[in-house]
Amino acid sequence: MLSYKYLFDLALILISTKLLGLLTRKIQMPQVVGALLAGLIMGPAMLNILNETNFIKQMAELGVIVLMFTAGLETDIQELKKTGKASFVIALMGVLLPLAGGFAVATVFNKGDGASASVIMQNIFIGIILTATSVSITVETLKELGKLSTRVGNAILGAALIDDILGIIGLTIIISLADSSVNIWWVLIKIALFFICSAGIGVIFYVLFDKWVKQYDKDLRRFVIVAFVFCLLLSFVAEEFFGVADITGAFIAGLIISNSQRTKYIAARFDTMSYILLSPIFFASIGISIEMPEMSGSIIWFTILLLVVAVLTKILGCGFGAKLCKFSNKESLRIGVGMISRGEVALIVASKGAAVGLMSTVVFGPIVVMVVVTTIITPVLLKLVFNKSKNQPGNNENINSNLVNKYEETLKYE
Amino acid sequence: MLSYKYLFDLALILISTKLLGLLTRKIQMPQVVGALLAGLIMGPAMLNILNETNFIKQMAELGVIVLMFTAGLETDIQELKKTGKASFVIALMGVLLPLAGGFAVATVFNKGDGASASVIMQNIFIGIILTATSVSITVETLKELGKLSTRVGNAILGAALIDDILGIIGLTIIISLADSSVNIWWVLIKIALFFICSAGIGVIFYVLFDKWVKQYDKDLRRFVIVAFVFCLLLSFVAEEFFGVADITGAFIAGLIISNSQRTKYIAARFDTMSYILLSPIFFASIGISIEMPEMSGSIIWFTILLLVVAVLTKILGCGFGAKLCKFSNKESLRIGVGMISRGEVALIVASKGAAVGLMSTVVFGPIVVMVVVTTIITPVLLKLVFNKSKNQPGNNENINSNLVNKYEETLKYE
Repeated sequence: MLSYKYLFDLALILISTKLLGLLTRKIQMPQVVGALLAGLIMGPAMLNILNETNFIKQMAELGVIVLMFTAGLETDIQELKKTGKASFVIALMGVLLPLAGGFAVATVFNKGDGASASVIMQNIFIGIILTATSVSITVETLKELGKLSTRVGNAILGAALIDDILGIIGLTIIISLADSSVNIWWVLIKIALFFICSAGIGVIFYVLFDKWVKQYDKDLRRFVIVAFVFCLLLSFVAEEFFGVADITGAFIAGLIISNSQRTKYIAARFDTMSYILLSPIFFASIGISIEMPEMSGSIIWFTILLLVVAVLTKILGCGFGAKLCKFSNKESLRIGVGMISRGEVALIVASKGAAVGLMSTVVFGPIVVMVVVTTIITPVLLKLVFNKSKNQPGNNENINSNLVNKYEETLKYE
Repeated sequence: MLSYKYLFDLALILISTKLLGLLTRKIQMPQVVGALLAGLIMGPAMLNILNETNFIKQMAELGVIVLMFTAGLETDIQELKKTGKASFVIALMGVLLPLAGGFAVATVFNKGDGASASVIMQNIFIGIILTATSVSITVETLKELGKLSTRVGNAILGAALIDDILGIIGLTIIISLADSSVNIWWVLIKIALFFICSAGIGVIFYVLFDKWVKQYDKDLRRFVIVAFVFCLLLSFVAEEFFGVADITGAFIAGLIISNSQRTKYIAARFDTMSYILLSPIFFASIGISIEMPEMSGSIIWFTILLLVVAVLTKILGCGFGAKLCKFSNKESLRIGVGMISRGEVALIVASKGAAVGLMSTVVFGPIVVMVVVTTIITPVLLKLVFNKSKNQPGNNENINSNLVNKYEETLKYE
């Protein structure tokens, strides 16, 4: 017999994320923070009413896929080309500094007990956890602020995409070093192959899809379905055959479709599905997956230092990268802040590492705290660094007015 | 590690249901038939690419809940009051005749091997399986035909609702007789209590919700979320605390909200979520859950007779009931045909019975065939009996023009 508990879980997630979301919005914080807090409060960390079932996990995964797909849909490839080089420099700096910082902090505190890999490997792994950027929360926040389609927004999106790739390369290399049965070069070739394949498939799909879409003026539902199927297949293929994150596949699928007709119509449908069902589950699930770690002695210091290093290395690393690419000081700060959030990416990386013996469970506590705090403060800090500029005269960051228009028109379908 | 197979499953379900749906529509059959066939072809019965995972089961359940909720939202309570008495008579006749017919056919063929209950109980149970009506396919078909908001559509909806209740009472009684530890009266009291409670909660919720909704002219998303939460909670409470089907709870939740403002806006959002994600999974899952039974000798005759009896007793029973309530011959035929489909309800009833020893697995094959055929032919026959009238002059069945308008306006939000 099927248990009906998941209907109750779903109702609880929807109402608690909405209530806390409205509450956080009241105090000028993004609704996302409320949704995360709702999961944290309802989850095992506090009230323990909600547990992360398979259903919630899979819906949350579907939720982040749709979020990234929509982000891809709403990205202008022409604009990404312009910011491409900048994004790469930003991502690279935002990977190198946290990697070094995480390794340094771990070297001071980590004794290497409770994990099978060597201490150096463990410490490098903690550095790699710090490199991960979870852009979905930043995307959601920037959308709320109406700043997604700015130069800064595009740079963050692009950098996070490249950061994801760099992070995956890092993770794959360290895991393959921990397990001698995996060939690093084969892993790298697979990643390269994925991008070559998706580029090839993308061009073919885009041409066919765009031609097909232009033939119809009604019965638009089929385009939404086909777009979704393409997104799901690319996500699946990325994970299953190339070892690349599914959300990277989803984002690329969105990018491919983004320039076709009816993008606005399609994006609006996915927005609806996101806010009614998938997004609340995704954000709540992050909160739910957190279990409060035991705290004692040096672990507390380790946690605090890890957190400070995690925040500063991203702001400084990405900010420096942005500065190198001729962004203004203000913009560089915003980009750095937008990259702080570690979110589910770091948690996934950490749990994968723990599974292969790269990390002791003792270290898991501090990492969870670091993830939670960076995830919760990112929207707050983002709002702060964006709000400041409102008082300044002549502030005209929304340069790409057609991008902004595109986004605003999407909202009209609401 | 989470397996990503479900993303592939989802993509396969969406594309196959859409393709076959468009194909069946091309040959003047409802898309629902195509979706069912897609599940049948992809499922264990034929290609065996798709299996019914927990994820698919839960999504399908959510799908049928949302379908029934939307059906409730789009129903006019005033109209249901008018057709209430008629619906009851139709449902009662449509339960008694199939019960007697199923019992008679079973008495001829069933030897009673392979099940723990007495032969008479087994045969009564087969009769009870025949009483179930799955209205969701009929609703979807009537929607496609634009006939949901007619007198006939309302009578079918109302009758199916009451049929569901009568069927649950029947099932509960027979199961409680098979298992002496359950008290029949307590079961009946719980069912009565459920309706009293939902009426009470419904009035309170409606008053508060309607008042709240009228205060806002934007940020309408919160109403959608709260409506969904109410639907999920009532579905959960029905199943969990009262032993009533979750879809009954969902339908009642829809009914309660149906008269408030913004119903059109809310219904359109759920329609979007349905067609992108939930409905295809639900209809495909029916096809997937079917396994081809072994066929030999008298089992084939049993199957054919069961099928003929299943179809005729519903048409005659419900048709006679409709005739008693002063529907025209044509309308009575339509109502009878609309009630033929057994769908997932009969399958759920059958599997519950098999679990408690009321049915041998030998009988399961014919019942599955009966369910599949009634489910597939209902939309075809419905279309047939509705299309005929198109050629007749002076056909003006859409009497409640404001009901139709309500539905048409819902579509505008598309």
